[in-house]
Amino acid sequence: MNDIISLMKEHRSIRSYAPDPVTDEQLTAILSAAQAASTSSNIQAYSVIGVRGEEKRRRLAELTGHQKHVEQAPLFLVWCADLNRLQSAVGGAMETEEPEFELPSNMEAFIMATVDCALAAQNAAIAAESLALGVVYIGGIRNRPQEVSELLQLPKLVYPVFGMCVGTPTQAPDVRPRLPLPVVYHEEAYSEAGFKEGIEAYDAVMAEYYAQRTGGGRASVWSTEMAARFRLKNLRPHMRDFLLSQGFRLD
Amino acid sequence: MNDIISLMKEHRSIRSYAPDPVTDEQLTAILSAAQAASTSSNIQAYSVIGVRGEEKRRRLAELTGHQKHVEQAPLFLVWCADLNRLQSAVGGAMETEEPEFELPSNMEAFIMATVDCALAAQNAAIAAESLALGVVYIGGIRNRPQEVSELLQLPKLVYPVFGMCVGTPTQAPDVRPRLPLPVVYHEEAYSEAGFKEGIEAYDAVMAEYYAQRTGGGRASVWSTEMAARFRLKNLRPHMRDFLLSQGFRLD
Repeated sequence: MNDIISLMKEHRSIRSYAPDPVTDEQLTAILSAAQAASTSSNIQAYSVIGVRGEEKRRRLAELTGHQKHVEQAPLFLVWCADLNRLQSAVGGAMETEEPEFELPSNMEAFIMATVDCALAAQNAAIAAESLALGVVYIGGIRNRPQEVSELLQLPKLVYPVFGMCVGTPTQAPDVRPRLPLPVVYHEEAYSEAGFKEGIEAYDAVMAEYYAQRTGGGRASVWSTEMAARFRLKNLRPHMRDFLLSQGFRLD
Repeated sequence: MNDIISLMKEHRSIRSYAPDPVTDEQLTAILSAAQAASTSSNIQAYSVIGVRGEEKRRRLAELTGHQKHVEQAPLFLVWCADLNRLQSAVGGAMETEEPEFELPSNMEAFIMATVDCALAAQNAAIAAESLALGVVYIGGIRNRPQEVSELLQLPKLVYPVFGMCVGTPTQAPDVRPRLPLPVVYHEEAYSEAGFKEGIEAYDAVMAEYYAQRTGGGRASVWSTEMAARFRLKNLRPHMRDFLLSQGFRLD
């Protein structure tokens, strides 16, 4: 164990921020850490939109499910998978000019761009936390991705993967427990042995966690929360059509 | 700037390893850092397969395009997006028992699991580097994903997103330069202004980088490398069919 691992293990999502701005120096440090992350064959298939303007943050808060911290945080980063820049770079680079060459935006390219984006974002999150800032990922950016794309003028072959609030925390929530390691880590091959016991043990831990966080008001366990999430609604059923309309072929 | 950001900015992929094993203590530290990463609504939709066995590493080296470091590194982690464990947890958790309930494995769930996997892996990569170990991501795990899945006994609703070699480095390659920040970071809205100049500037930097790494033997630039990569072959065209066969609906 060391300071870096300790910092990562102290991660908690922050949903309440002071108005203090994230300075340009901090932002540059965060983004340079992001750029240093691994990228598939150096394709660097992601872009980041930084939103500081109040009006736009307010609109993004609406579009992400009325999350007040999206409006409150002084900086909102929208992390996008981006095949558009590659398309620009590749369009004119070969000796045989083929201006209509289309980058194959198949499932593989979609995965590469999505993963590139996530790796960079996670470096940014850690960099921000190392600067005593707080962050929270906002998957709600995919609630209304068409309107987000229009607001941020995203071209074809770019999609918003998640948002990220960044700012000075005004809360210090408990670190949320995770599944027991043997349920997540498998030696030599995938094994479901121990799944049932591991999930039951985690449910017991989470029952206490939920009760503590709500002063005893909320009785639930992890598997019930997950069931509610996945059984009661079809999560963002528009994503495939949205991606196709953004020019991703996904074939 | 601080030690943590410096460490991230020092990242370089390691493709040559000493035989020294990664200790259980190191592995536990790496995996606990991974688990601390953000996860979409705490779904924790990923699994990690750790491969130390020589015979299996040799086979994985073959399956990932004969990458010798996959065989050489003492530890190979296969990072998987995993909706199977959620399916197990959700299958029996509601009061109304519906044993045939199928987790909706649409594009949205696919994105959530893939992103969860990548965020955890990037924490692991940084944790490993903080322990003076080296890593390299192996996208080649998607070259022959069906065979990888059989070898690692991956059930339906689990797919290998990437591999990761971990071990003690026996090389110290230069840090690879990245695109100029203004090409990647956009203020308030996406803008292609400056793309052309930024890519040209990066091509010039990379020309020098390639020449240095090869003792002047390789004349290339980034956009040419990207063109070669995307124009000359259709990248992993099997991925969509593979994912469908793994039980992902992707609708």
